[in-house]
Amino acid sequence: MSQPDQPTPFVPNPARLPDVGFIGTGIMGGSMAGHLLAAGHRLHVFNRTRSKAEPLVARGAVWHGSPAAVAAAADVVVTMLGEPVDVEQVYFGDSGRNPAGQGVIAAARAGTLLIDMTTSSPVLAARIASTAADRGLAALDAPVSGGDLGARTAALVIMVGGDPKAFARARPLFDLLGRSATLLGPAGSGQRCKLANQVAVAVGMVAWCEALAHARAGGLDPAVVQQVIAGGAAGSWALTNLAPRALAGDFAPGFLVRHILKDIRLAREAAADDAVSYPGLAVAERLYQELAESGHGDQGTQALWAYSASGSSTAPGS
Amino acid sequence: MSQPDQPTPFVPNPARLPDVGFIGTGIMGGSMAGHLLAAGHRLHVFNRTRSKAEPLVARGAVWHGSPAAVAAAADVVVTMLGEPVDVEQVYFGDSGRNPAGQGVIAAARAGTLLIDMTTSSPVLAARIASTAADRGLAALDAPVSGGDLGARTAALVIMVGGDPKAFARARPLFDLLGRSATLLGPAGSGQRCKLANQVAVAVGMVAWCEALAHARAGGLDPAVVQQVIAGGAAGSWALTNLAPRALAGDFAPGFLVRHILKDIRLAREAAADDAVSYPGLAVAERLYQELAESGHGDQGTQALWAYSASGSSTAPGS
Repeated sequence: MSQPDQPTPFVPNPARLPDVGFIGTGIMGGSMAGHLLAAGHRLHVFNRTRSKAEPLVARGAVWHGSPAAVAAAADVVVTMLGEPVDVEQVYFGDSGRNPAGQGVIAAARAGTLLIDMTTSSPVLAARIASTAADRGLAALDAPVSGGDLGARTAALVIMVGGDPKAFARARPLFDLLGRSATLLGPAGSGQRCKLANQVAVAVGMVAWCEALAHARAGGLDPAVVQQVIAGGAAGSWALTNLAPRALAGDFAPGFLVRHILKDIRLAREAAADDAVSYPGLAVAERLYQELAESGHGDQGTQALWAYSASGSSTAPGS
Repeated sequence: MSQPDQPTPFVPNPARLPDVGFIGTGIMGGSMAGHLLAAGHRLHVFNRTRSKAEPLVARGAVWHGSPAAVAAAADVVVTMLGEPVDVEQVYFGDSGRNPAGQGVIAAARAGTLLIDMTTSSPVLAARIASTAADRGLAALDAPVSGGDLGARTAALVIMVGGDPKAFARARPLFDLLGRSATLLGPAGSGQRCKLANQVAVAVGMVAWCEALAHARAGGLDPAVVQQVIAGGAAGSWALTNLAPRALAGDFAPGFLVRHILKDIRLAREAAADDAVSYPGLAVAERLYQELAESGHGDQGTQALWAYSASGSSTAPGS
């Protein structure tokens, strides 16, 4: 994770904003890139599905045919992708899905700042930072919480790992995207923080689902119980915001079941060598796994309610 | 749970407030009884440890030598006890710890309203209501959340089971004790709601403890992570209010480990016949059980943090 303390040829020109490359302009990334564009940054974009970048191109963003081409054109490259395998491909390149076959680390000009905002693996983030440093590039991992709405309203919480100087350079961009950006530690630390967040989200979902299932099994109206208990020591963001949707039968995704499952697995993998056990997370993983296997992977995470209340799970020891 | 629709000899006299009997004047009960006294109710008190009732007696409450004597003197009897076994003894009597050997159900005048505010068993609450109805008494189960502070500031959330007419009669008293009182259903429903609340509390504690343990195991400062994630989808009352105390090494009880363990067991027992499983609750029970067995039963529930972060638990499947 060390970064050579070498001078880089990057000389910021205070008279102009840095050119930003944005790779991954889906629901989250599209909103985020839009904020950068609105602030006056020249924007270079690539997305696997080109049509999703068109609204940005219509507003003046420059389309490029590959991640490498974006990287070569930008002072700062932001990536907002799906999974670690996508991140690996975009940063290190391949000859498959990436048409140019070259990753952004190889293609970027020396001094370029690379910022991965995908929720991904801490180990991969550290490898990116180390490889980037060898080429005279700076890299940050900067996953976010706040979802679609947070991206749209520039209210994301940005969890950053990497070098303090790189963080300082990225700060003006983070300020355009979120309500807070915090440097947690060296490369990978942003990912680790995000995964810790997802542990709390995943196990917290089990908490309110089992509580309201308990109430309903006892003959109570779970909607009344939700109102009674949400304001006290049992309260949580999810009990206030997701439980009412679930109780109304609304399982439309804010955040997909298969995405929380992906993040739970990342959290478990990141913690594989910890001297700590995560029995609550193990339960959440099993429940979400069963939920995904029973065809609910594309519902919102609050679908766990229907599963808990129906007694579909046949948990040992419960 | 049916209550005979018979006229009772109780004739409220609007010119005077009902005499209230208060049995169990500990930390919670003492504060609550004080509010009733302050509002002008004549108060009749009994407590196993007499000294804990002295402050109320000094303010004008009438001491009685047994629960039965309190019951015989009051229009409304409120009980705030420790465990279901205490509730059973006070309501049904025994020849052991209860000096008079007679319970409040036998001793109360016809028409008396009995309100048990202890966190107890839904089945016991239904049995009390049924036995009370046979004697022409009304009974409510009305456990609370909000803790010492809620009792002191009359901000309790009161979860009520029983007959709507009895609830209407109790309402003026509830208004003196809490910020809300909700009738959830027939006798036992208040207890069931409180236990559902405790399920959310217990499993929610696992959620933030594992999240911050995950962060710390990854080299992050859990206090910084707490600040970063508490305001988002991972947020909960406990993450905001209990985690900072735990991280500062403050395990002084707001709510005791052995009390949450007691409530978890009550929740499990109440749910024994449910067609629903509670794997998250099973994890919480095991962890709190281990915590109590390792000598932490009289610490606050946030002590789970030290246990989670130290890796003391050797959970299967995690």
